[in-house]
Amino acid sequence: MKTSGGSDAAKRRAGESAAEAVDDGDVVGLGTGSTAAHAIRRLGERVDSGLDVRGVATSFASRELAADCGVPLLDLDEAVGTDAPGIDVAIDGADQVAVGGEGDETATGVGPLIKGGGAAHAREKLVDAAADRFLVVADPSKEAPVLDRSVPVEVLPAGRTAVAEAVRAAGGEPVLRRAERKDGPVVTDNGNLVLDCAFGEIDDPDALATTLATTPGVVEHGLFVGLTDEVHVGAEAGVRVARR
Amino acid sequence: MKTSGGSDAAKRRAGESAAEAVDDGDVVGLGTGSTAAHAIRRLGERVDSGLDVRGVATSFASRELAADCGVPLLDLDEAVGTDAPGIDVAIDGADQVAVGGEGDETATGVGPLIKGGGAAHAREKLVDAAADRFLVVADPSKEAPVLDRSVPVEVLPAGRTAVAEAVRAAGGEPVLRRAERKDGPVVTDNGNLVLDCAFGEIDDPDALATTLATTPGVVEHGLFVGLTDEVHVGAEAGVRVARR
Repeated sequence: MKTSGGSDAAKRRAGESAAEAVDDGDVVGLGTGSTAAHAIRRLGERVDSGLDVRGVATSFASRELAADCGVPLLDLDEAVGTDAPGIDVAIDGADQVAVGGEGDETATGVGPLIKGGGAAHAREKLVDAAADRFLVVADPSKEAPVLDRSVPVEVLPAGRTAVAEAVRAAGGEPVLRRAERKDGPVVTDNGNLVLDCAFGEIDDPDALATTLATTPGVVEHGLFVGLTDEVHVGAEAGVRVARR
Repeated sequence: MKTSGGSDAAKRRAGESAAEAVDDGDVVGLGTGSTAAHAIRRLGERVDSGLDVRGVATSFASRELAADCGVPLLDLDEAVGTDAPGIDVAIDGADQVAVGGEGDETATGVGPLIKGGGAAHAREKLVDAAADRFLVVADPSKEAPVLDRSVPVEVLPAGRTAVAEAVRAAGGEPVLRRAERKDGPVVTDNGNLVLDCAFGEIDDPDALATTLATTPGVVEHGLFVGLTDEVHVGAEAGVRVARR
């Protein structure tokens, strides 16, 4: 569960702001984590009031919450592909959002993200990348001028040591994520393991994303580059929205 | 089982040629498929004669064959990583090997490969890429001036339709691989599915490899670019060896 940092009020404002951007008839990607959960709850309220939407879950957790909230669900395979409706908009949280462009430190931008604190980033990226519009919801504690959190990397179980070596060769320090409610490592919804890889400040997220994606044994990494259309940042009062 | 094309005699010559290139004390990556199987059997004979090697299997099938042949085995996690011995040499087959460089159609080169007919390419790439030297074993039916076979792409089950769309956008025609001894699709040793993706002649394997690797939902693809050190091609009489 991603509960690190940020007030619940700020998260709620961000999530509800993004939920208001959903139109009648939309197919909506439903993100994972505490901020996206507020969007799902608000969507459920809007469905109660007559909004016609169908959700595509990014994880076991978001599927369960959507069902609880009365948001009708569609499988990803039903939503995308030939003759399918497609995903109109996806709403998802982030563990860190880069703000401010090169030489423009005051700008609140829609920079690259780090995701995967909830180990759902493989399916999140599938859904978020398939959506026509991708709205990120966050609180101010997630914003940073330069990404510097550990990058969660989902790996095939047989590949964890080989990938760890490749991460070290790329300047990172990998740590196998341990579970808290079972012995041994966290196992993802896909049956894989997670290496949390610290690279310090990530000056070129695009290059690192390609390096990680092309490393044998890597299933998916938590860098989301070039996917975001809007960032909704909730503060104690009000919401800032940055658009690409 | 990869049994398409090529005489068994040619495969045996290639596999045995590569097995002879293994030195005493080596850690050896053990490939999958009918040609690599000849290398494993020959290694087993050499172990009977006193050769000291340890094998790292690339699949359930190669692990089982190595055990049958008396080749001692090491887990990939024991072979690579800090303070580990590393993999000295890997021997593996290919479904297609590009020969002849740009403007040099008579050269037998060590060009890129297509692998994954046996759906083991994710673990094969882990092992083959980790090895100091990668020896490809093939018969002449696998050689082609330009790669044009379907590229097997291992995908997360939830990602099969989204990846199929991305493959179409990249100019390919994806087909979900069906199983023959069970209903439904082939499920890989990693619990995933396989899309066999026809791109016609692949003029730029490196670019296509990056496109596939960076597509959400792709676990691994069957293009092996820049990994090969030697290609051992068995003919009816003799073996041709091309080195990088």
